[in-house]
Amino acid sequence: MELGFFDGEFISLDEAKVRLEDRGYQFGDGIYEATHVYNGTCFALPRHLARCRRSLRELRIPITYMDEELTAIHQDIIKKSGIKDGAIYYQITRGTAPRTHYFPEHVVPHLSMTIRESKPNTEWQENGIHCTLVEDIRWLRCDIKSLNLLGNVLAKQAAHDKGVQGTIQFRKDQNLITEGSSSNFYIVKDGIIWTHPLNHYILKGVTRSILMEEIIPKLGLTVVEKAFSPEFAMSADEAFVTSTSLEVTPVVNIDGHTIGQGAPGKITQSLLTEYHRLVRQECYA
Amino acid sequence: MELGFFDGEFISLDEAKVRLEDRGYQFGDGIYEATHVYNGTCFALPRHLARCRRSLRELRIPITYMDEELTAIHQDIIKKSGIKDGAIYYQITRGTAPRTHYFPEHVVPHLSMTIRESKPNTEWQENGIHCTLVEDIRWLRCDIKSLNLLGNVLAKQAAHDKGVQGTIQFRKDQNLITEGSSSNFYIVKDGIIWTHPLNHYILKGVTRSILMEEIIPKLGLTVVEKAFSPEFAMSADEAFVTSTSLEVTPVVNIDGHTIGQGAPGKITQSLLTEYHRLVRQECYA
Repeated sequence: MELGFFDGEFISLDEAKVRLEDRGYQFGDGIYEATHVYNGTCFALPRHLARCRRSLRELRIPITYMDEELTAIHQDIIKKSGIKDGAIYYQITRGTAPRTHYFPEHVVPHLSMTIRESKPNTEWQENGIHCTLVEDIRWLRCDIKSLNLLGNVLAKQAAHDKGVQGTIQFRKDQNLITEGSSSNFYIVKDGIIWTHPLNHYILKGVTRSILMEEIIPKLGLTVVEKAFSPEFAMSADEAFVTSTSLEVTPVVNIDGHTIGQGAPGKITQSLLTEYHRLVRQECYA
Repeated sequence: MELGFFDGEFISLDEAKVRLEDRGYQFGDGIYEATHVYNGTCFALPRHLARCRRSLRELRIPITYMDEELTAIHQDIIKKSGIKDGAIYYQITRGTAPRTHYFPEHVVPHLSMTIRESKPNTEWQENGIHCTLVEDIRWLRCDIKSLNLLGNVLAKQAAHDKGVQGTIQFRKDQNLITEGSSSNFYIVKDGIIWTHPLNHYILKGVTRSILMEEIIPKLGLTVVEKAFSPEFAMSADEAFVTSTSLEVTPVVNIDGHTIGQGAPGKITQSLLTEYHRLVRQECYA
């Protein structure tokens, strides 16, 4: 059963706990993480917690929750909710203070969390998804997993409006693809995997890190971290997106252009298979 | 006495009314306005309400509060608070729904409002302020007065860290000044006022509109809406910022460089005098 948490207390999602002058509400002044629960276990939590700490540091939000405590809260909310397969979302905001742009003093950050039933979309993984290209209009610190998500919201809505499943963003001034609206984006061309390098234009996805550090080396595949144009992507042999909820999901069509054979590619499928193996290893042991 | 308002009800600012899945809290998915109250009257409210409507339309948030109702709530909160000179802040978020990036269906927007005692800083207006230049890293829809304010927050904090009063932002790729962290920016050079043109890089400030449409024509001054470089700004005869809370505030120093004579300029002062005349006319009649 879905469940919430706010500053130390488990609550129903109908309860109002947030005050008007929470900086999360007035400035989007906070960060978040979203993890996936398989078989009652949160996958890759330490990587999420490490990224959370980095986001907090970049925004100079004091760290008042240690990894051990956050891990325990994740375990508690899974147990109390009774959810076996689900999505946990948590955010930390700078705190509540009379509205002023600069950081207020003597405030304590707020932690909120939700858990809901959720499963990866296996139909999308088997058949691939269609995507649309939109201009990336987000701020220049996309490496921070912040609550300023309107750019991502509008990008995702563009896909929804066009009746496709995903959005790929590109910087207009450079004509280079950055990432999805809440995922990293990759293509395969002549056997080599391409993806945008880590900098302020993209988020360092946890699934991306697992691919780069664990799966790609293990499979003996080759990857280049190099930005590429939408035209180059259209000519790719394979394309896919990765995220905590999408895992590895093939992209078979972009704005009406078929990618490769219009079906999930071999390399993409091998990455997904290996990802599932890691999930089984960690969550079904 | 400070007072709050949430969805039809006047509340204390200590009361928690917002739920975790309010999209304002999780995505910054909403818009805001801030007005100034002089002598118990809200100045230039129709201009703020018109901008609010535009922001909502741009984000496709349904308009569920008519101008008449918003005007009445402004009058009520002033009366109930007993505040004569203050600042009213209000925001409208898309509504509360299970977290998903694209717009949820069948949700009703939330209106929240706060009022606090506040007066323009007359010392800053008389002596001018010092500013620092920072890179403008915000998203490319700065024309929408949205709750995605982390770029502005970090910009304002840069001034705070350096012990100066204001921040001027510039786009690094173009080497052009856009605006302040919550104000519009202008220089005066050879008798001509310069300011950034209205487009997606800046907000159409209400005080800017009053200057452009009422004050500058009345005083017979000349203005060009044209972007300029930080170097050009340093060589200006006068500089100033405008906003609802700053009104017209002279800038006399940028990153240690004295602007003009290092004191408020004649044209800047004439604009402020005329602005105060308009305030008296509307709020002290």
